[in-house]
Amino acid sequence: MSGQGAFPVLDPASVEPRRGARYPEHLRAAFATREKRVLGDPLGLTNFGVNLVHMPPGSESALRHWHTREDEFVIVIEGELTLLTNAGETILGPGMAAGFPAGKADGHCLVNRSGRDAVYLEVGDRRAGDEVTYPDVDLAAIWRDGGRVYVHKDGRHY
Amino acid sequence: MSGQGAFPVLDPASVEPRRGARYPEHLRAAFATREKRVLGDPLGLTNFGVNLVHMPPGSESALRHWHTREDEFVIVIEGELTLLTNAGETILGPGMAAGFPAGKADGHCLVNRSGRDAVYLEVGDRRAGDEVTYPDVDLAAIWRDGGRVYVHKDGRHY
Repeated sequence: MSGQGAFPVLDPASVEPRRGARYPEHLRAAFATREKRVLGDPLGLTNFGVNLVHMPPGSESALRHWHTREDEFVIVIEGELTLLTNAGETILGPGMAAGFPAGKADGHCLVNRSGRDAVYLEVGDRRAGDEVTYPDVDLAAIWRDGGRVYVHKDGRHY
Repeated sequence: MSGQGAFPVLDPASVEPRRGARYPEHLRAAFATREKRVLGDPLGLTNFGVNLVHMPPGSESALRHWHTREDEFVIVIEGELTLLTNAGETILGPGMAAGFPAGKADGHCLVNRSGRDAVYLEVGDRRAGDEVTYPDVDLAAIWRDGGRVYVHKDGRHY
């Protein structure tokens, strides 16, 4: 709790960043340099997750995806990020927000096409049974035995 | 959707702020000047709420409170806010986060004791049956008929 003693307070700078993504290995390249600092879990929150994400130029937030049961929210803190959806591309500057309701079949991701670092905050709730569709690659996350597992689009496991 | 056309994007500056609190009238004074811009709802999110809150000097975020079933998260975007909990007071500067897990019986609120405006982002999930305890005043929010209603601590309605 970063020196705040009894207070339920967290300095994001004190959180060790998680680098890279957990996708099957051949899909990980674009995510090697982005850093996620998990803020909700160390504060004891379980109903939703909150991450502060540092995006160097050229990095991507995730494979373009959508969730069946979980809502997602992002807000840009610093720099510029390009949002990709079925509608195409739009640039989000500091303070701009975007939301991805559960079950809306429109994949999204953020990419940093600018020449400088960007930072955004992401929030997503946690729901048993949530599955994830990745429209652009041969990947899906399906719900099995209490968690999500990656499979090919034809159902074979990775 | 603030001119972003088909994109699920929101410029918080385009959102009409909600001023003041919905507490019983004699408890509203400290909240008259703070402005909440609701970001999650206009983006179609329902599992959790996200608000951007503008706090002029002297304003308070809420009566000190805790939730039985809902998690809360805050992060300071701009300025300085003082967090009040059972542990006392601590100042949160820009970038500092705090979390309030469901069921943790420690009331919290943010007050602006600085000489300039502050801005923070708040996230809270939504759970049927959630009730709210206000340790410092004769108020409680209890779950009845699908929503929360305000009562005195002895159960009488306001």
